[in-house]
Amino acid sequence: MSVPSSVDLSPADIYRARARLDGRVCRTPLVEAPVLSALAGTPVYLKLETVQPTGSFKLRGATNALARLAKTGCARVVTASTGNHGRALAYAARALGIDATVCLSRLVPANKVDAVRALGAQVRVSGQSQDEAEHEALRLAREEGFAYVPPFDDPFVIAGQGTIGLEIVEALPDVANIVVPLSGGGLFAGIALAAKSANRAIGLTGVTLARGAAMHASLAAGKPVLVEELDTLADSLGGGIGLDNRYTYALTRELIDQTVLLDEASIARAIVHAYRHERLVVEGAAAVGMAAVLDRVLPAERIERGPLVLVVTGANIGMDLHRRLIAADGSQTKSQSSSRTTR
Amino acid sequence: MSVPSSVDLSPADIYRARARLDGRVCRTPLVEAPVLSALAGTPVYLKLETVQPTGSFKLRGATNALARLAKTGCARVVTASTGNHGRALAYAARALGIDATVCLSRLVPANKVDAVRALGAQVRVSGQSQDEAEHEALRLAREEGFAYVPPFDDPFVIAGQGTIGLEIVEALPDVANIVVPLSGGGLFAGIALAAKSANRAIGLTGVTLARGAAMHASLAAGKPVLVEELDTLADSLGGGIGLDNRYTYALTRELIDQTVLLDEASIARAIVHAYRHERLVVEGAAAVGMAAVLDRVLPAERIERGPLVLVVTGANIGMDLHRRLIAADGSQTKSQSSSRTTR
Repeated sequence: MSVPSSVDLSPADIYRARARLDGRVCRTPLVEAPVLSALAGTPVYLKLETVQPTGSFKLRGATNALARLAKTGCARVVTASTGNHGRALAYAARALGIDATVCLSRLVPANKVDAVRALGAQVRVSGQSQDEAEHEALRLAREEGFAYVPPFDDPFVIAGQGTIGLEIVEALPDVANIVVPLSGGGLFAGIALAAKSANRAIGLTGVTLARGAAMHASLAAGKPVLVEELDTLADSLGGGIGLDNRYTYALTRELIDQTVLLDEASIARAIVHAYRHERLVVEGAAAVGMAAVLDRVLPAERIERGPLVLVVTGANIGMDLHRRLIAADGSQTKSQSSSRTTR
Repeated sequence: MSVPSSVDLSPADIYRARARLDGRVCRTPLVEAPVLSALAGTPVYLKLETVQPTGSFKLRGATNALARLAKTGCARVVTASTGNHGRALAYAARALGIDATVCLSRLVPANKVDAVRALGAQVRVSGQSQDEAEHEALRLAREEGFAYVPPFDDPFVIAGQGTIGLEIVEALPDVANIVVPLSGGGLFAGIALAAKSANRAIGLTGVTLARGAAMHASLAAGKPVLVEELDTLADSLGGGIGLDNRYTYALTRELIDQTVLLDEASIARAIVHAYRHERLVVEGAAAVGMAAVLDRVLPAERIERGPLVLVVTGANIGMDLHRRLIAADGSQTKSQSSSRTTR
């Protein structure tokens, strides 16, 4: 397994993360999805990060980063987050006896802001984008002595998310493809590193938004670039990757086999599918793997190789939105999709 | 731990079940539920059997019974089931290369009948009650040489369900109370045996229907009795316990600390709570523990002892019914409850 030489991260770091996570984070179920399997013509499994205590996979990376900081005597941490990372950091900090402050942009849904506050963390709302919230977090780290825990571009965060990849390979050694929501790249890089270390033939697909996806735009440009942050059903996929990205851009570029781009209608249909056929409440970002199967945008020659795992990343959707999507089901099922696959 | 001397079942049988279940059945998450914890004033955890491959805990007992039968060279099995056991048996039989036939009454919802058929089992629909379906299954066993796998009154089925109790105590050694949906008593007896073997101070509460609950009526009568089977949101809780009950009646009588009785409105509210606050799709029978907390019918002196676990048994609700309940949310929240606690 080749890791970019600029990145100081090895599969052993993922095993170290797992030792830190033991007893703090759920080893999540991997469940076959018969309707999707029939549609794909190959067994399709869902990796259910929806059942993590904070409702998303982010608890893994946050717990790994904080458990390591706790050993250094660190007393207070700060981060910027579209919601799920902040919530996870707050939960992990409370468990470890560390004070946490979370900087959020005004685009973050109210239910996610409330969830962070309910866990005892300080919340600072500032700016119109993830990048502006991150600037505030970095200012606090620089000027007021907080330890900064990035939402994705951090080796301990990446290694924590990578424990998902270990669990997938252990539960399903013959997995041929893993489909991962692609945002800042921490989840993607961690899972890809774990999976390709076990078997480099495992295909790693990143799924993201057709519009406003920073990692995809950066991969296309050959360097980290800025994108305009847009309102989307998959708010967890929004946000930049940082022009000074140190880890996730290089790792993702090295490890990704293909990228799938989805529009909003596809994501909405997949949220409804998850409810009606998998009996799951999922947020938009968590539905993108199912959307890729429903839209049949994964290449046949790739799917034919064997079992397919979709990482279902979180359940933290606003429930009024969810109920509206469910109620609209039926009227939208014939709308056209413009999903497409690149590379 | 005293087990009724008439019942040949020990905690070691539950450990044997776990060895048979390894790799075939999900070790399910135990997740704290903050809203319910705040309401109860003690930490409340949900044991999520909803993520089992067939959508309910029944896979544990069915897999244990069939794995043992498979060793004897058994080629075909039959059962009667309100749905979840039949579905589980069909799944386990397919995995173990055994032919399965499932006898169902006409009261079983269509989605559950379809699920059994989709797993490759033969389905025979006959009669208006669980008891009539069971008679047909027993006739096939007697006259056509099938091995009969009862839905609950069987030591291997009980031991399989009991693995849930082991997992709860291992994940949360300080658990003070476990709340279990009470129907035929296989789930209740298995969990109670495992939990009280670890710590006999753990309180075991059975939750069931105010009307039509055969085990509750039998406990009150001092012997197994028949009850009229009624239409209910919690269809998995319907059905008799058998006038010739051999295991679950005696075990439940010995191990139960209290019974909570719920009406239909309480169950409907709990299904809606699970969706809105826990982001879970659950069937009626699985919602009864949450209903008991929401209705505040668990005695304060019992709750004060420490952490409370609710066993959330399954997700197999008809989705049209689920969507109607969700849509009705808001108009019914002020309706009166008539839940009550006995013993």
